[in-house]
Amino acid sequence: MGKTKQRLSKKAYQIRAGRLREQLVQLQVELKKAPFKVLLILAGPEGAGRGDLLNTLAEWLDPRGVETFSYHAPTDEERNHPPQWRFWRSLPGIGRIGLYAGSWYTETLREEARSKRALGHLVGEAGRIRDFEQLLADSGTLIIKVWLQISKEAQGRRLRTLRAEPVTAWRVTDEDWHHHRIYDRLANTARLIRARTNRPGARWTTIDAEDERTRNLQVGNLLLSQFRRRKAKMARLARVAAPDIVQPLRPAGLRRLQALRLDQDLSEKDYNELREKWLGRLSTAVRAALAADRSIIFAFEGWDAAGKGGAIRRLTSAIDPRDYRVIPVAKPTPEEKHAHYLWRFWRDIPRRGRMAVFDRSWYGRVLVERLEGFCREDEWRRAFNEINDFERELTDHGAIVLKYWLQVSHAEQLRRFRERESTPHKQHKMNAEDWRNRRKRGAYEIAVGDMLALTDKRNAPWHLVPSDNKRFARLEVLRSASRQIEAALSG
Amino acid sequence: MGKTKQRLSKKAYQIRAGRLREQLVQLQVELKKAPFKVLLILAGPEGAGRGDLLNTLAEWLDPRGVETFSYHAPTDEERNHPPQWRFWRSLPGIGRIGLYAGSWYTETLREEARSKRALGHLVGEAGRIRDFEQLLADSGTLIIKVWLQISKEAQGRRLRTLRAEPVTAWRVTDEDWHHHRIYDRLANTARLIRARTNRPGARWTTIDAEDERTRNLQVGNLLLSQFRRRKAKMARLARVAAPDIVQPLRPAGLRRLQALRLDQDLSEKDYNELREKWLGRLSTAVRAALAADRSIIFAFEGWDAAGKGGAIRRLTSAIDPRDYRVIPVAKPTPEEKHAHYLWRFWRDIPRRGRMAVFDRSWYGRVLVERLEGFCREDEWRRAFNEINDFERELTDHGAIVLKYWLQVSHAEQLRRFRERESTPHKQHKMNAEDWRNRRKRGAYEIAVGDMLALTDKRNAPWHLVPSDNKRFARLEVLRSASRQIEAALSG
Repeated sequence: MGKTKQRLSKKAYQIRAGRLREQLVQLQVELKKAPFKVLLILAGPEGAGRGDLLNTLAEWLDPRGVETFSYHAPTDEERNHPPQWRFWRSLPGIGRIGLYAGSWYTETLREEARSKRALGHLVGEAGRIRDFEQLLADSGTLIIKVWLQISKEAQGRRLRTLRAEPVTAWRVTDEDWHHHRIYDRLANTARLIRARTNRPGARWTTIDAEDERTRNLQVGNLLLSQFRRRKAKMARLARVAAPDIVQPLRPAGLRRLQALRLDQDLSEKDYNELREKWLGRLSTAVRAALAADRSIIFAFEGWDAAGKGGAIRRLTSAIDPRDYRVIPVAKPTPEEKHAHYLWRFWRDIPRRGRMAVFDRSWYGRVLVERLEGFCREDEWRRAFNEINDFERELTDHGAIVLKYWLQVSHAEQLRRFRERESTPHKQHKMNAEDWRNRRKRGAYEIAVGDMLALTDKRNAPWHLVPSDNKRFARLEVLRSASRQIEAALSG
Repeated sequence: MGKTKQRLSKKAYQIRAGRLREQLVQLQVELKKAPFKVLLILAGPEGAGRGDLLNTLAEWLDPRGVETFSYHAPTDEERNHPPQWRFWRSLPGIGRIGLYAGSWYTETLREEARSKRALGHLVGEAGRIRDFEQLLADSGTLIIKVWLQISKEAQGRRLRTLRAEPVTAWRVTDEDWHHHRIYDRLANTARLIRARTNRPGARWTTIDAEDERTRNLQVGNLLLSQFRRRKAKMARLARVAAPDIVQPLRPAGLRRLQALRLDQDLSEKDYNELREKWLGRLSTAVRAALAADRSIIFAFEGWDAAGKGGAIRRLTSAIDPRDYRVIPVAKPTPEEKHAHYLWRFWRDIPRRGRMAVFDRSWYGRVLVERLEGFCREDEWRRAFNEINDFERELTDHGAIVLKYWLQVSHAEQLRRFRERESTPHKQHKMNAEDWRNRRKRGAYEIAVGDMLALTDKRNAPWHLVPSDNKRFARLEVLRSASRQIEAALSG
């Protein structure tokens, strides 16, 4: 991409733009059938022409396959969720192009790194962005990041020209002039952010934006060339079959699971008494947390018939129905299947001051998806870290994350399956899949063990609940939830 | 449903509840395959047990087919949209049950009708609710509305009991006591609202809520009986084929369409000059409207190749990209097909201070859906009023609604089709359907005429744009949009 300070003639531009346009539309036809999405992120100083470029690209491309994004200051719904939430909820679908004139970079690029503390903050933000882009790139998203470069002088000229025309004068704000004055400092910030987020799968390309025509053509061509490179790479990637034998990554988790004493008993009388006590304590703790604008997120996992539903109903019976939602997680819909596996959970993450209870969760990725070959090995292996990052986003934003594994013995599960099959209003809970999963107990135990070993973090700990006795299990959930929430509030 | 003041014994309750539960789960299995959804709305004074009943129903039903709703005070995103938006965006899907402990009634039921003005407001709100429920019922939704009746004395007892228990004391708020004191006045409001919203397809059933067990069983049985009645009715309804001959409902619209002079010309020089003038004026008007917290909603309709895309691009070229979104409306996705036809448009309605441009719109219902038999005759006939109500909701909330029909002659359309087929970067715009639609021009003209005649309202007028000359059409859009927005601001 040679730089040219000489302006491209209008005629030459129109010829090249016409050709480029044909190729871009062809790209979109191919992309429609491709198993990935494209994000084109435009960043650069004021006057570099992000908005104009966006309009040009929108004109060149078939609008039915494109979405454009730019973000205002966050709304209160957005502020009440972790910062990433607003970007997750607006990602384009597979086979589509997202054009970002504003993006997760916008706010960061406006900061000056004048103090050590400000610098530290910037570095932290860059790390967050890097993780987010890594996760998108890992899932196949083609990320193209363009830095539109213009000099301070050119910026001044551009702003003055805009100001002079009645139709465009409004575009130039006081903030723009302020940013013009501190051009050098913002350029430093931008260099730092670009350096720290310039990673495989999410590289920056700097494009000279002084001549608008050349700029437009270069960005269009960049989109083309990156897309072609990706398609060629996809063709080389063969699909790997799921291995027949499941090997633990970290045997310690499996040992922990197997060491759990499942035969713990609790009489009905003791249960009734203790339940009232702990329900009261839990309800007090939950109300205090919500009143303090914390959110509470429960994830329930466990064997089929381990009693997740019953435990959840006891748990929520003491909570104001307006404050919580139970989210039963079933097989993904076609729309969900096309999105990143975390997408549908992000959608249901509660705002500050609310509670959500997931009946099954994002851990499906490292359990059923791992074992049934619904994702590739590199995908579920990556998921442990991705999930840890995800939960870190939540707790960094003040959420209290509680994770439960309900453990029943193989024998007790059989008893419950048989009971379900012979109880009319429980029959709907049973299907052939439950029996199939039961036969794979050994493999599932290994996957559960790895999950416990690799995602049991101080900010989002796993609670293992012996569940052969339902009363004991339900009480244990109330007890440990009360304690974790109380600790989170006092800590 | 005989009322009994005698308390049902625990044993009798458990037996009946067990039977009911089986039937409810069976209902859900049948509902899953049924082409409609069920809304169960629970309303009643404090202490009537909406929350407890909700928990009981949630325990009886299979959670995978149920969603529960209750609403806090609106968030700022919700306040910045028309009042109905929050209800539209949370409707359950087809084949599912929505349980509403709070609903569109909640706020209204808290108002006292002490002055004539307050009474007028209540009557207006009841009218809105009636229209909304009518629209849902018309589209096949089974709406069951339960009024839980308890006396003032029983309410007082219930509140005192709740307050006495540490686990439940927090549930009783000062507001509850206030509502207890004005029990009679709120009962009057409730009677008025119930009377005005008690319509075919959305009837109220009053249930004595003093004995909780009887109450639970009665509500469960009501759900069952209403569902069975609906299923029986569905079986009787045969699908009506679309008529072969299209007859206009209101010939005046067709005459207006055919009277339009399409051969209006505009030279390139005049266009360039006038365009700058009107772009500036439009951009000023749009900014003023958005700054005044109005939203702006454009709907573009017109023949294939009439130039909608180009007109939209000119229009938006003067607007800050962060302030508007263009929404290309394609065939509905499976998810959208299962929802009410207005649902996907509600989803994209902009908040106050933002603009949305729909490239094709909700008028598809009375154009392509009418003519291709995608909906029944009673459905598209009803749609004219539904759309007028919908646009009235928008403009009542301060939105400026601009509707455009771009009219090209049959001959000019043919020229453009041929040009598209011979221009590489335009070929993707053409497909067999375009030629098919072209052959049905006569029928489409009748449908367009009816649309113009039946939905041209003062609050949301149609602009007919002669579009054989693209320059003239684009300028006409800029001109009429500027004028309508300016008038809305000064009016």
